[in-house]
Amino acid sequence: MRVTEQVKKILGWYESDNPGTKANLVRILMTGELAGTGKLVILPVDQGFEHGPARSFAPNPPAYDPHYHFQLAIEAGLNAFASPLGMIEAGAATYAGAIPTILKLNSSNALAVTKDQAITGSVNDALRLGCAAVGFTIYPGSEYALEQFEELRAIAEEAKAAGLVVVVWSYPRGPNLDKAGETALDICAYAAHMAALLGAHIIKVKPPSAHISLPAARKAYEGFDASTLAKRVAHVMQCAFNGRRIVLFSGGESVPSVDDLLDVVRGLHVGGASGSIIGRNTFQRPKAEALDMLARIIAIYKGRE
Amino acid sequence: MRVTEQVKKILGWYESDNPGTKANLVRILMTGELAGTGKLVILPVDQGFEHGPARSFAPNPPAYDPHYHFQLAIEAGLNAFASPLGMIEAGAATYAGAIPTILKLNSSNALAVTKDQAITGSVNDALRLGCAAVGFTIYPGSEYALEQFEELRAIAEEAKAAGLVVVVWSYPRGPNLDKAGETALDICAYAAHMAALLGAHIIKVKPPSAHISLPAARKAYEGFDASTLAKRVAHVMQCAFNGRRIVLFSGGESVPSVDDLLDVVRGLHVGGASGSIIGRNTFQRPKAEALDMLARIIAIYKGRE
Amino acid sequence: MRVTEQVKKILGWYESDNPGTKANLVRILMTGELAGTGKLVILPVDQGFEHGPARSFAPNPPAYDPHYHFQLAIEAGLNAFASPLGMIEAGAATYAGAIPTILKLNSSNALAVTKDQAITGSVNDALRLGCAAVGFTIYPGSEYALEQFEELRAIAEEAKAAGLVVVVWSYPRGPNLDKAGETALDICAYAAHMAALLGAHIIKVKPPSAHISLPAARKAYEGFDASTLAKRVAHVMQCAFNGRRIVLFSGGESVPSVDDLLDVVRGLHVGGASGSIIGRNTFQRPKAEALDMLARIIAIYKGRE
Amino acid sequence: MRVTEQVKKILGWYESDNPGTKANLVRILMTGELAGTGKLVILPVDQGFEHGPARSFAPNPPAYDPHYHFQLAIEAGLNAFASPLGMIEAGAATYAGAIPTILKLNSSNALAVTKDQAITGSVNDALRLGCAAVGFTIYPGSEYALEQFEELRAIAEEAKAAGLVVVVWSYPRGPNLDKAGETALDICAYAAHMAALLGAHIIKVKPPSAHISLPAARKAYEGFDASTLAKRVAHVMQCAFNGRRIVLFSGGESVPSVDDLLDVVRGLHVGGASGSIIGRNTFQRPKAEALDMLARIIAIYKGRE
Amino acid sequence: MRVTEQVKKILGWYESDNPGTKANLVRILMTGELAGTGKLVILPVDQGFEHGPARSFAPNPPAYDPHYHFQLAIEAGLNAFASPLGMIEAGAATYAGAIPTILKLNSSNALAVTKDQAITGSVNDALRLGCAAVGFTIYPGSEYALEQFEELRAIAEEAKAAGLVVVVWSYPRGPNLDKAGETALDICAYAAHMAALLGAHIIKVKPPSAHISLPAARKAYEGFDASTLAKRVAHVMQCAFNGRRIVLFSGGESVPSVDDLLDVVRGLHVGGASGSIIGRNTFQRPKAEALDMLARIIAIYKGRE
Repeated sequence: MRVTEQVKKILGWYESDNPGTKANLVRILMTGELAGTGKLVILPVDQGFEHGPARSFAPNPPAYDPHYHFQLAIEAGLNAFASPLGMIEAGAATYAGAIPTILKLNSSNALAVTKDQAITGSVNDALRLGCAAVGFTIYPGSEYALEQFEELRAIAEEAKAAGLVVVVWSYPRGPNLDKAGETALDICAYAAHMAALLGAHIIKVKPPSAHISLPAARKAYEGFDASTLAKRVAHVMQCAFNGRRIVLFSGGESVPSVDDLLDVVRGLHVGGASGSIIGRNTFQRPKAEALDMLARIIAIYKGRE
Repeated sequence: MRVTEQVKKILGWYESDNPGTKANLVRILMTGELAGTGKLVILPVDQGFEHGPARSFAPNPPAYDPHYHFQLAIEAGLNAFASPLGMIEAGAATYAGAIPTILKLNSSNALAVTKDQAITGSVNDALRLGCAAVGFTIYPGSEYALEQFEELRAIAEEAKAAGLVVVVWSYPRGPNLDKAGETALDICAYAAHMAALLGAHIIKVKPPSAHISLPAARKAYEGFDASTLAKRVAHVMQCAFNGRRIVLFSGGESVPSVDDLLDVVRGLHVGGASGSIIGRNTFQRPKAEALDMLARIIAIYKGRE
Repeated sequence: MRVTEQVKKILGWYESDNPGTKANLVRILMTGELAGTGKLVILPVDQGFEHGPARSFAPNPPAYDPHYHFQLAIEAGLNAFASPLGMIEAGAATYAGAIPTILKLNSSNALAVTKDQAITGSVNDALRLGCAAVGFTIYPGSEYALEQFEELRAIAEEAKAAGLVVVVWSYPRGPNLDKAGETALDICAYAAHMAALLGAHIIKVKPPSAHISLPAARKAYEGFDASTLAKRVAHVMQCAFNGRRIVLFSGGESVPSVDDLLDVVRGLHVGGASGSIIGRNTFQRPKAEALDMLARIIAIYKGRE
Repeated sequence: MRVTEQVKKILGWYESDNPGTKANLVRILMTGELAGTGKLVILPVDQGFEHGPARSFAPNPPAYDPHYHFQLAIEAGLNAFASPLGMIEAGAATYAGAIPTILKLNSSNALAVTKDQAITGSVNDALRLGCAAVGFTIYPGSEYALEQFEELRAIAEEAKAAGLVVVVWSYPRGPNLDKAGETALDICAYAAHMAALLGAHIIKVKPPSAHISLPAARKAYEGFDASTLAKRVAHVMQCAFNGRRIVLFSGGESVPSVDDLLDVVRGLHVGGASGSIIGRNTFQRPKAEALDMLARIIAIYKGRE
Repeated sequence: MRVTEQVKKILGWYESDNPGTKANLVRILMTGELAGTGKLVILPVDQGFEHGPARSFAPNPPAYDPHYHFQLAIEAGLNAFASPLGMIEAGAATYAGAIPTILKLNSSNALAVTKDQAITGSVNDALRLGCAAVGFTIYPGSEYALEQFEELRAIAEEAKAAGLVVVVWSYPRGPNLDKAGETALDICAYAAHMAALLGAHIIKVKPPSAHISLPAARKAYEGFDASTLAKRVAHVMQCAFNGRRIVLFSGGESVPSVDDLLDVVRGLHVGGASGSIIGRNTFQRPKAEALDMLARIIAIYKGRE
């Protein structure tokens, strides 16, 4: 496999990592339709855990089957598939080596009485299942944030020693953040920055709105042109070590149409995002529609649409 | 490298430490423009974690890049660069051996709902990244202080066995301390003393005001001339084992001008401070201005300004 | 060194301890002016941690220097010097072998918002610093007492296995104890007994008053002659396994004059106390005065004054 | 990556292995010119260790450089590159993810006074270096064979738990085997069978001669047509669990010409061999010649020559 | 410290190592008179262990004192000082940070009844003593070689994880090597190559003679011009991963005069050696003579003599 210059440049950002972690980064970056471009589209399927199975899969019943998601990610030419332990176990042998997998190591659920996450997988699980990466969610701003940071620290140290990639979902929430605050520009940028400081190789955040949430941050954004998603995304990338970390964005909270979603992706692309993590917007549609939509997203990241 | 008499004298204070820790103290004390003088200026960059990236770096956008800070510390001839895990990882290979690094092992953030810190790095991380020291923040007076002391104890024992230096940021705060109390003379002195008793090799506190906060302490300060910063600093040094520990001071909370900052540094120097830890006041200025300002600070500690 | 019959008799009380712990008891009991008498005077210096440096050392500024206390204990011919980690580290090499040291493994402070203690040292620290003993404070009656007992248990198990002596400061306090209760006869006796049951080799309590605090205990003390300190102390010794444990007493909370302090010591001696732990009353006086006073205290324990 | 039916069939043989090991098998089987065919050609470079550097590399001096071999394996479109620790370390970051690597965990050398091997790498090394497999040599028949089997057992258990592939070089030798015996049909078949029984995923043996070495085995081979290499290879495959294990063959001890070597490969291919491991015959030729020869070998395994 | 381009290039060879190991390589390469040139001169003092104290130090009695050697290495401007545990312990605090030290972790001695080495230090010792590297001797060709390789493997894995440099003394000897064989060109080259394959960062071998020892190797050296030391050294460097590893050479077995020694060094320099490790030839001379000789050696490596 001829690793492209673009991918080699990205590897250079991870200068303190061992060759094992670098090789797994390459596996992810050299897979799928976007192989070698330095851009990524990843399929995450943890909504069954987070919101319950029917809310997640009833709109498209084949998606109740774990193999459906492996297959979807492969057919769409995505870079990786991320899911909690059980779903990875349910398909890891059938699809061994067919697509890089990311083992989500913690999960929340709609029945939980606290807004925390439970650790539901381990680095050893990731190795035995052949995963290229481990995933971990943090909730900056929540009552559990500091404890989550400490859990992530321990997991990341172990994962890096074993040559795995560390992907951090950084979702601000908590008593001091209202709904608008959770996707505010300053908060998304802060969430990306904290994940980077915690040692994440790949960071996932939500596309930022133009809102500024922290009163103390307002002055810093005076004069900042937040009028377009691209400009806001560019700022988030800047906050991820001036672009030295891979940052992926979700498709947005609730997107009514494919066209709107593609508009978001165009904004992400122009802003210099590393790519997208898109879950519900794909697997809740019929497969043919999902594949078509993903092909158009990939085309955008290739600069062709 | 000819270790100076001044540095040898300082090493003598650390009589119970192993040669590994002493060698790392020497690395820090024999680096940069102040090499051999026994004085130190250290660049800390954890404000992105503590306050958010834009508040920290928007005033000087090149500072979004981790390499900028390594470069700034090297060009300015500082003694060391301190930062959390991710930022050290982002430059540790490129700048291997070029400047001693201090891995901050705990961090707070502006989104946190508790005033605690999370542990975000380990002694093993410090060794694999080639750091000379680990850093740890305690909040004497807070609800988390005792737990932080216990975390520090465990980390310091491990770090000292591995030949690393332990740097403690001692920042009093908590329900019984108002804003004035946090920098009160008795509180700063107490903060330095507790850090020393906890086994810190290098202590960072804020420059003390003339205020006395603890009613029970007032009698002890009757007749004490707290009229100048130099006299107050001299007292803090006295409380750090009669000067047997390295104590560094921040540049002050909010300093409007370079001249005011240099006045503070002059007070620190006359009072016998070991040096300064200056973050925002440096990296929030254009690099040329920052280098000029740091050169003047260094000149003060050399007794030349 | 010829170990005296008196010391051999004391060792006999510690019949389940290993020879390592016995040898360290001998080191303490065969040091200083009271060597071989079975009596002890120990210098504790943790007031800087507990109350702050200025309140502790401003009355006698040379005491800011850790070496001062090592020197004072040696010159006065005391049996041991007790202090938290940092202060022992600051002098352990210079005074290696010159006087037995006791590493205080937990500490409180005047800024703390809880009345708990933090663990600030380890058995490994005590070994690497050449200490003869570890010290630990418990607050029977406080909200933290049971947790402290458990911490003590773990530390004592480790310390005894390593041949160290365990010294317990047993200071009753808590929501059900008023100021008078803290030094009540039944409470002091109870505090000594619990420390003995927790496995302490050496116990420190405060000199008891004639007050009986626990209603349930009153009946037991009916007819008890508590009219003199000696009689009350004898009862405390009785409660320490009928004198089979070394029990040391403080000099009293606030003692206005040397003569009053010496009167207390005379009462302790007549009552059969094993000796005194005297901190502030010594190091807050000019050194010559302190040495003179300590010489007179030692003379009392020798039965010469 | 679309994993082919042929590769899926092979994975089916490894039914007890975890998905991690299966994924690494896929990585190896889906790499290079033979990707998806179920056939493999692997470049091993441990001859510098086994025979000395000049004997190995003087015929083609660029081969002294470790990067040369990574590059050669990539350019030739091979499935994997196998080498001891130091050579993998020398290129693992530059070629991260570019080709599957096999860390040889034991090595012999021409200076050794025993015919044993030394363990020179670990499973942890393989993980940190991003290897897909570990390699291990056994000498069935030697005085060290049983100990080597036990070493292999321990390494294989650890490697499989971590999702790595185990490659075993099975080279019979020892006091009861003369030179002809080492490549005798019964011995090669036995060597492959023992490696399979020891849990190897991939087995390397030498192409068998028609000789039968063990007197006790002669009866079993009565009537066996060993007249062609293809028939002998088919028997070795049969002995590797009836073809349920991947078995690779060397190019033969000393091969005078490319044509002779290609004849051997044709025999291997017709006999159903999984492929070839070819070291000296490639890197001791000028690169262009080696690439040409490897292209022809690959063409044979593709059934095109 | 401005790390030179030459040193950065050397760091590039160690692409799989963590920043800790890279930083310690920089410490060694940026110390002394040769700082930044990429060349090294190292003082080893283990001859007292190997041959006995009088044979080692009687020619220059001040050399009985461990501090003499630290001082000599510092005054001469060497890059590092290597010695076994006790000698490093005897000076590590006095010379903390003054010169990089290499803790020799195994040693032989003239009283030994086997020609093996004993492990006499640990990676933890190296950390507590502030060493930049660990050193280990292997005897390729001896009965103990394979066991030594395995010991080295375990130590190197631990040392690299802790950010230390691994220096391997590779001294062929054993029943099949006569005296001439021990320094034969093919044997020295093989010794360097095996050390590189075992994961050494820095390799020490003896200057090779023109002799070829292994009959099997003779063909490989046919036509090789071994007429000058420079050409032979260039071949050894080639065998150390085509110059991708630092290789140091001893001063030669028995060198009668300074001029002869300098001639050897000139040959090493012209041949592209990374530098010299010179023990007896320095510390067995009066200090002034040794300093003068070392200055001339350094001048050669600077290309000035």
